[in-house]
Amino acid sequence: MAQSPSAFVPGHVTGFFSAHPDDDPTKAGSRGAGVAVSDGVTVRLEAGEGLELNGETATIEAVDRVLGALRVTARVVIETELPLGAGFGVSGAAALGTALTANALFDRELSENELVTIAHGAEVQAGTGLGDVVAQARGGLPIRLEPGAPAHGAMDGVPTGGTIEYVSYGAVDTEEVITGDTQELTAAGRRGLAALVESPTVGTFMETSRRFAREADLLTPKVRDVIEDVSAAGGEAAMAMLGETVFTIGTGLSEAGYDAERCEISLTGAHLQ
Amino acid sequence: MAQSPSAFVPGHVTGFFSAHPDDDPTKAGSRGAGVAVSDGVTVRLEAGEGLELNGETATIEAVDRVLGALRVTARVVIETELPLGAGFGVSGAAALGTALTANALFDRELSENELVTIAHGAEVQAGTGLGDVVAQARGGLPIRLEPGAPAHGAMDGVPTGGTIEYVSYGAVDTEEVITGDTQELTAAGRRGLAALVESPTVGTFMETSRRFAREADLLTPKVRDVIEDVSAAGGEAAMAMLGETVFTIGTGLSEAGYDAERCEISLTGAHLQ
Repeated sequence: MAQSPSAFVPGHVTGFFSAHPDDDPTKAGSRGAGVAVSDGVTVRLEAGEGLELNGETATIEAVDRVLGALRVTARVVIETELPLGAGFGVSGAAALGTALTANALFDRELSENELVTIAHGAEVQAGTGLGDVVAQARGGLPIRLEPGAPAHGAMDGVPTGGTIEYVSYGAVDTEEVITGDTQELTAAGRRGLAALVESPTVGTFMETSRRFAREADLLTPKVRDVIEDVSAAGGEAAMAMLGETVFTIGTGLSEAGYDAERCEISLTGAHLQ
Repeated sequence: MAQSPSAFVPGHVTGFFSAHPDDDPTKAGSRGAGVAVSDGVTVRLEAGEGLELNGETATIEAVDRVLGALRVTARVVIETELPLGAGFGVSGAAALGTALTANALFDRELSENELVTIAHGAEVQAGTGLGDVVAQARGGLPIRLEPGAPAHGAMDGVPTGGTIEYVSYGAVDTEEVITGDTQELTAAGRRGLAALVESPTVGTFMETSRRFAREADLLTPKVRDVIEDVSAAGGEAAMAMLGETVFTIGTGLSEAGYDAERCEISLTGAHLQ
């Protein structure tokens, strides 16, 4: 086995979304918007089998599905500073990073859209995400106008850049929310998308995301408290979908006295490095 | 007038293309492929009128058209280390950077796709380019599958990264080529796109680009000599469309003894900074 290149995939925090299931995993997905962050996931491959996440043996179903789709046997080595299960799309990033590195190392000659399609489909089939992969491939502050992989989906973006802060208090079960009764959530997400398309600015994104978490009844007491503290200090915070995580664009969390992680909006999407 | 943000737009070198005129400038464009480079264009706005390019008064029709579309009066200050008229898409970059900065400074609340559409349409109407703007907005090694602005066009990408080298010997008149008899060029470009879609790798991109320049009868004697020198040294070079410019992915030009400019593939598309 040749020396593996490594892939970097940014984390992605969704602010609001609507779920769009479909029997075809390349058509299934979500509408909504989020922000790609420079804290992310690196993936490289080694000879062998299995998966290592920050030095510990682990299993990520979406990664296994990507390896299967590319007919590759390898050990997948993943490192990330992001909290797990907290709404940063680590499983989608791991799947997309695996697709990029396996394609390069095993000369599969697939295009970026094809690799994104494989990783998106794997993530949907694993039930662990609906829109992180296409956003992580793009970078920036992506708006998911139409759900699905590149052949079916459509994206736009809010022109922006700069600092992101976040604090995380734990996990929310993504699979439970996105495979449960999503009617109310989807209605709230549709309203959010209409508002952001009308005014694609950072201010509208944050305001819409805050409203979505409330309307979709996803706010936990802890998250509500933090968002209120940031508002009281003159900032704007929202909840990451889906995790017990609060984020700000800019330094609103540290200005409100929180010991927040700080990184940048990742203007670069997933890539080999 | 508030303090202007500045925008960075990567240069873009097209390797091969086919021209697709249309009465609607948002549908007109090109198919083909190229590479976004980290040597690029920065744009900021000042109170006043007119345009300054590397400290000299200049006129770029596509920039004037963008200002008109956004109903903005400002002095546009452009800086670039790229050679002018040499196939790096400086006019398209200037138009896109103007759209990004004017949108931010004058609170026009337009999305990235909308700004790309305005800049692409302005560049097409000015007759100075057909595909640089959409590629510069994306970054990487973009494949233009369908022509036009985001609502009409479709893009993919070759997964890659790393060093780019280039040498420039002067200008080729873009307007003359893309508004002249493009039948032979377009047929060669279609063959190139079919080859790259079949095998979306850096090797295929370079080979296809070399063949395109020969088949479309665009090679100048100087460019032919340089490409042959790089081949003799074991590398792969191609001609920038449209300029008397030779580029390599990797360090093939310096390995062949040329005093080449060196930068990176720009994985980041156009953005505010």
